[in-house]
Amino acid sequence: MTASMIVTPTGVLKRVRRSVNELAESWPARFTIMVFSALILVFTGLLMLPIASADGTVTPLVNALFTAVSAVCVTGLTVVDMATHWSMFGNIVIMLGIQVGGVGVLTVASLLGLVVSRRLGLKQRLLAASDTNPMRAHHGPVSESQTVGLGDIGGLLSAVVFSVLVIEGTLTLLILPRLLILGEDLLTALWHSFYFAASAFTNTGFVPTAAGMDPFATDVYMLTVLGVGVFLGSIGFPVIFALYRFARMRGWRKPRRLPLHTKLTLLTTSILIVAGAAAIFGLEWDNGDTLGEQTLGQRLMTSLFMSTMTRSGGLATLDIDQMNGSTLLIMDMLMFVGGGSASTAGGIKVTTLAVLFLAAFAEARGYQDIQAFERRIPTEVLRVAVSVVLWAATIIATSSIILLHMTKAPLDHVLFDVISAFGTCGLSTGLTESLPDGGKYVLAATMWAGRVGTVTLAAGVAASTRAQFFRRPEERPIVG
Amino acid sequence: MTASMIVTPTGVLKRVRRSVNELAESWPARFTIMVFSALILVFTGLLMLPIASADGTVTPLVNALFTAVSAVCVTGLTVVDMATHWSMFGNIVIMLGIQVGGVGVLTVASLLGLVVSRRLGLKQRLLAASDTNPMRAHHGPVSESQTVGLGDIGGLLSAVVFSVLVIEGTLTLLILPRLLILGEDLLTALWHSFYFAASAFTNTGFVPTAAGMDPFATDVYMLTVLGVGVFLGSIGFPVIFALYRFARMRGWRKPRRLPLHTKLTLLTTSILIVAGAAAIFGLEWDNGDTLGEQTLGQRLMTSLFMSTMTRSGGLATLDIDQMNGSTLLIMDMLMFVGGGSASTAGGIKVTTLAVLFLAAFAEARGYQDIQAFERRIPTEVLRVAVSVVLWAATIIATSSIILLHMTKAPLDHVLFDVISAFGTCGLSTGLTESLPDGGKYVLAATMWAGRVGTVTLAAGVAASTRAQFFRRPEERPIVG
Ligand SMILES: [K+]
Ligand SMILES: [K+]
Repeated sequence: MTASMIVTPTGVLKRVRRSVNELAESWPARFTIMVFSALILVFTGLLMLPIASADGTVTPLVNALFTAVSAVCVTGLTVVDMATHWSMFGNIVIMLGIQVGGVGVLTVASLLGLVVSRRLGLKQRLLAASDTNPMRAHHGPVSESQTVGLGDIGGLLSAVVFSVLVIEGTLTLLILPRLLILGEDLLTALWHSFYFAASAFTNTGFVPTAAGMDPFATDVYMLTVLGVGVFLGSIGFPVIFALYRFARMRGWRKPRRLPLHTKLTLLTTSILIVAGAAAIFGLEWDNGDTLGEQTLGQRLMTSLFMSTMTRSGGLATLDIDQMNGSTLLIMDMLMFVGGGSASTAGGIKVTTLAVLFLAAFAEARGYQDIQAFERRIPTEVLRVAVSVVLWAATIIATSSIILLHMTKAPLDHVLFDVISAFGTCGLSTGLTESLPDGGKYVLAATMWAGRVGTVTLAAGVAASTRAQFFRRPEERPIVG
Repeated sequence: MTASMIVTPTGVLKRVRRSVNELAESWPARFTIMVFSALILVFTGLLMLPIASADGTVTPLVNALFTAVSAVCVTGLTVVDMATHWSMFGNIVIMLGIQVGGVGVLTVASLLGLVVSRRLGLKQRLLAASDTNPMRAHHGPVSESQTVGLGDIGGLLSAVVFSVLVIEGTLTLLILPRLLILGEDLLTALWHSFYFAASAFTNTGFVPTAAGMDPFATDVYMLTVLGVGVFLGSIGFPVIFALYRFARMRGWRKPRRLPLHTKLTLLTTSILIVAGAAAIFGLEWDNGDTLGEQTLGQRLMTSLFMSTMTRSGGLATLDIDQMNGSTLLIMDMLMFVGGGSASTAGGIKVTTLAVLFLAAFAEARGYQDIQAFERRIPTEVLRVAVSVVLWAATIIATSSIILLHMTKAPLDHVLFDVISAFGTCGLSTGLTESLPDGGKYVLAATMWAGRVGTVTLAAGVAASTRAQFFRRPEERPIVG
């Protein structure tokens, strides 16, 4: 009898962890897709139970599935009134879906990122070994720990759970007094605060109260708290963790610099938030149905809040339906990009956009390498970025064409809701609610493809790099 | 006194050619942009002359400029009635603009492609020399002549002029009897035939007759001739020339295989034309205002013709305005891609799309190299492709946002006309005609950016590759 066969809690945990590791390492992409799809089916089943609806009836499959997908994919699009349709049981199921979907994704994605970076790290070392460039030898392969900033998957899991508890807990405590002031009793206020906190940090965008965001439309405190929650969720766990390590570690454990991923994510996110806010501010300035009646300060705050929400928070203090077509197109682009990698946000991810622009910049300057922050980004990363964008464009185009043909709705509304679904943003022109059942299924599939697609594409695809024993002769087609 | 200073026609020609070569090689991108912009200004001036309009008045600057841009960029969008507004002088100016713009672009683009491939060829040789992969040595660098299929710029120019004369001449002769049957007198029919031929081959899409395409809406013969003309123009000169060499050369001069560029262009173009036709056929099948009233054969033919026109021919036998939103989105995507590189067509180019998908495919299969037709496509080509797409997306987004804000027109019409302008396609929902002057300038700028942008981007950017004496340490951001 060996030590590992003794059944102790620690022993079981270790073995479970080992199995999960093995499964994740052998089939990372399929593993995520499997977990996701299974989760969605379980939550659909739970939401269809009579006990889940406020009036004790069976919620139709299409609405239960849509809500389950919207929760597990942390999208926040709705086809029923979230504040009144569900019972407490239903709400707890949804909350569970959000946490498992949002945080679970975050975990699995980080885990995949780690696995991938390990493999790529290996491949990189192999490549580096055959690299005879003398300049190259001074640097040597870079430790993959720079990518995620963590040494092992167990530590990663613990760190995720810990940071979620801390962040959601803090947000809950910050929101609580605001809801008490609004006149809610302590228990209700606590539940709603937690719901708001989880909805913000997981970038879901469900609102638990019947009045929606209206009471807070010009509330600096509440919008700031929610905005920060969404921001923290959207930059992604690897970034949060890197920032934490950088800020707290001392002595030899303190990293000398922030990882490239962290810098790229923060810079690109900041640029998008500021530019988005400026565009919304400028284009909606004189729109009487949106910003037109607000004070200057309110206009600035609303623009900044709405811009942050396109990262993929999805809470809205303006009527999307009343916005100008130009603003909708700007928001389409912002939602398309979404948030950070391995985050609760969706979209193609800010680093994907950054890598594409860095590649174009490198080309324009005639650099041999794609570079950023004095680091070289390998070409495989560009290929992954291109794959992700093509995937996104294909899904969005297909979904839009089907919905356009099905509903004959105007393109700006269809495109907005489809990109919002793909980027799991959850903002809506109102089209989603009015879709026929077929359209709801299409949009649910779009959310699913958006959530599992980009993440597993980035991870699973690259993980299967195979050795090639000969290379084809080179030939260049003319492009452009 | 040296031989080169003797002033003979041949001597002058040689010296001009040498100067042009030198200018083109030293500043290929700026050279093209300069030539283009100068041409547009000259043609604008000519079109503003009273003698250029049918009623002998001065055409307003905005309309003259728009028409000049539309002609020189071979776009075919119109803000005045092309069949009645211009005098014979005006028409000849426009015809000259089309030929110089379409064929000149074709030439300059090919020339740039050659220059670039030469430089890249050099760089490639340098890289190959430092490549210690033993498998690589079996192949050696591939001659750049594979790319364009020509040895020198002079030969290229002659070949372009020759093939244009032959193709446009043949098309003219094929169209002539059809117009005579329509009842036109010989001279008018000759002029109109030539106009149609040039308009088709240069992918312009202007129609010389007041009735427009209506008389030929279900005319198999005319649509086939025009379709083939547009197709030949859109695949690009390097492809035409490679096909010609492959078909005509005998013995040692016959190439053993078609260049990769040719295969990629023909395959992608064919896929797009067939898939586009299928989509138009399926989506417009029961639309009473477009295909609904046609016979099955007519529906098939119209779908195929309209799909071919998105390459960027721009002739329309259907009322774009009456098409479904879903079909418009499909056509948006087709026009965005456009035709072949170094052709009279616009868009990001079919090879650009192909390279992006090949990169994603290589990533999905875990290949180290981007491959097609048993050839390896170097990574720089992917970077150029990404640059071109980013440029296209940026221009189209900017132009759309401005026009949306300016006109408050629906997104599907704005997007369609903007992509049509950028891709120099010339199909229109009717929005272009109704634009205020500001909007016309925006659209003219979009055409200009679409025509010079992608071509010079692809050429100019890559031409300035600089040696790097050290490489940064590598670090991978997570994307997707
Ligand atoms: K969301
Ligand atoms: K055209």
